[in-house]
Amino acid sequence: MKQANKTTDPAPVTVLGLGDMGRSLARAFLAAGHPTTVWNRSPGKGEDVVALGAVRAASAEEAVRASGLVVVCLVDYDASDAVLEPLAEALEGRVLVNLTSDTPARSRQTAAWAAKHSLSYLDGAIMVPVDVVGTAEALVFHSGDRAAFAAHEATLKALGEPATYLGEDHGLAAAHDMAMLDFFYGAMGGLVHAFALARAEGIDGASLVPYLNTIAAILPPIAELTAVDVDTRTYGNDGGNLAMMAAGVDHILHTAKDHHLDVSHLAGLKSVTDRAIAEGHGSSSWSSIIEVIAADR
Amino acid sequence: MKQANKTTDPAPVTVLGLGDMGRSLARAFLAAGHPTTVWNRSPGKGEDVVALGAVRAASAEEAVRASGLVVVCLVDYDASDAVLEPLAEALEGRVLVNLTSDTPARSRQTAAWAAKHSLSYLDGAIMVPVDVVGTAEALVFHSGDRAAFAAHEATLKALGEPATYLGEDHGLAAAHDMAMLDFFYGAMGGLVHAFALARAEGIDGASLVPYLNTIAAILPPIAELTAVDVDTRTYGNDGGNLAMMAAGVDHILHTAKDHHLDVSHLAGLKSVTDRAIAEGHGSSSWSSIIEVIAADR
Ligand SMILES: NC(=O)c1ccc[n+]([C@@H]2O[C@H](COP(=O)([O-])OP(=O)(O)OC[C@H]3O[C@@H](n4cnc5c(N)ncnc54)[C@H](OP(=O)(O)O)[C@@H]3O)[C@@H](O)[C@H]2O)c1
Ligand SMILES: NC(=O)c1ccc[n+]([C@@H]2O[C@H](COP(=O)([O-])OP(=O)(O)OC[C@H]3O[C@@H](n4cnc5c(N)ncnc54)[C@H](OP(=O)(O)O)[C@@H]3O)[C@@H](O)[C@H]2O)c1
Repeated sequence: MKQANKTTDPAPVTVLGLGDMGRSLARAFLAAGHPTTVWNRSPGKGEDVVALGAVRAASAEEAVRASGLVVVCLVDYDASDAVLEPLAEALEGRVLVNLTSDTPARSRQTAAWAAKHSLSYLDGAIMVPVDVVGTAEALVFHSGDRAAFAAHEATLKALGEPATYLGEDHGLAAAHDMAMLDFFYGAMGGLVHAFALARAEGIDGASLVPYLNTIAAILPPIAELTAVDVDTRTYGNDGGNLAMMAAGVDHILHTAKDHHLDVSHLAGLKSVTDRAIAEGHGSSSWSSIIEVIAADR
Repeated sequence: MKQANKTTDPAPVTVLGLGDMGRSLARAFLAAGHPTTVWNRSPGKGEDVVALGAVRAASAEEAVRASGLVVVCLVDYDASDAVLEPLAEALEGRVLVNLTSDTPARSRQTAAWAAKHSLSYLDGAIMVPVDVVGTAEALVFHSGDRAAFAAHEATLKALGEPATYLGEDHGLAAAHDMAMLDFFYGAMGGLVHAFALARAEGIDGASLVPYLNTIAAILPPIAELTAVDVDTRTYGNDGGNLAMMAAGVDHILHTAKDHHLDVSHLAGLKSVTDRAIAEGHGSSSWSSIIEVIAADR
């Protein structure tokens, strides 16, 4: 007799931290049918996920003991280390996934702590806003213990398909996170500054948006060309040279100063383009500023 | 008898300046069938457009006298003012379109000079790279003399459809240009820094590109939300608060410093987030940094 097709019940998961992101993680696990236990340092938070079926534990230790997979997502590693250190014993035999964002160095330190206590440890990074978690577009990185990832991949996919495993170096998820955020926050700094400058010139935010979106649209092909430049360390100018572009930076700076706007971010960028031009990159591509940014590499 | 459908012959155009962009403008006019006269300060430049049929004038004045529409595109307004000032008489009765990029203040100054000489003057800005000029995606702004724009709109569309007229204030094209470039160069500074940081962590440019593109893809919806925040001056946090995001900026800064990268641009941004948090915006949205950037508005 053929055995009936048996689907395994969704595995229990614990989520430590119920900030904006922790709550979003809990919602995604609940939506995928996982029995979900939650804990947060300050009591009041997370009534919404409890209402959706999450079980609130009385302590972090009780939360950890409820599941084989423990996900932590706090503001930074000072916070996650403070919460995790007293839990080494409770974590034995479970898999710990730290989705807090911080530096690769902190990820590697926490991995060393986990290794000292023989804990199975994955270090991850969530690359999307809270409302995207749990959808097909949600990019979530994992790095570290390969066997632990393989064992829990199905559960981790509740956060977003595919769960991306980057390699055994626990710092890899954070390294990718940092590089992506470096681009993101450069853009986010410029974005708000653009709205400030437009307002000073009498242009409201809503009118500016469609134009900003044409800028966003040209970034992917530029990223592609930049990758070739930096990987080959050749900075052939294909239609826009650094001197011309640096003049653009200078014009923005002047316009912003005329309107008494803060220019810290822009002035920092100008100091980089100035040095790159002084070093002879004026007729090279914009990408040549990497030779100033990473001068000793 | 019905008159035959008569199409007017494409009007003659002059292009002053044969840098990367000037040559691209000349190519677009030639491709649309306009008899095109060109001039460049340094002689050798622009053999490619001459080979395509452009007529090289022996002097800027000769070039101006060849056409009813004169387009100038030089590195900045110091350059375009220097070229245009001796040409006031030759420009009488023609339309001058300045597609050089500079500050709104410089555009308004050149407009005042043109008004003094009773010249028809349009001040424009090209918002796309050279290879996009002449295609349907090419965004080109114009501002200033409305009648001059109406008279030459068909010719100006050779540069890109639609030619966008923003209003009679000659500074409007530059104001939009500056706001868009403000966003663009913020992103471009972050982009190259991201590649530098990734390389320092052993990640090559080609591997990083697809991930950077996921960042580029989330910028348009964020621009939309930011516009609402800044137009209403309410900074409700919808899932990502400034304190959490500023911690991200700080983590990038630490990672970059660990790898001895230049952090001028990032440090400038951090000084803004620090002040915004000190002023009580920690739990507001990222957009609240506009209250620091434009503190006196
Ligand atoms: N939100 C996003 O869009 C987003 C996107 C990608 C990645 N992330 C990352 O996800 C992580 C969490 O972000 P979030 O948006 O959830 O931040 P958040 O809303 O500010 O929540 C912060 C969480 O950290 C906890 N916490 C802070 N210090 C603590 C300590 N010393 N001990 C114990 N708990 C502590 C807070 O607990 P209390 O309630 O007790 O203060 C709260 O649960 C961050 O690393 C962030 O970079 C967020
Ligand atoms: N390239 C792009 O992708 C792009 C995109 C959008 C907007 N723009 C804007 O288009 C404009 C031109 O850019 P581009 O890429 O063509 O720059 P470029 O390749 O560096 O060319 C600069 C042009 O300016 C001329 N010039 C400089 N100083 C001069 C002076 N004192 N007198 C006369 N001519 C002078 C140069 O003549 P010589 O040959 O004699 O030096 C050359 O023709 C800039 O305002 C730029 O911001 C460019």
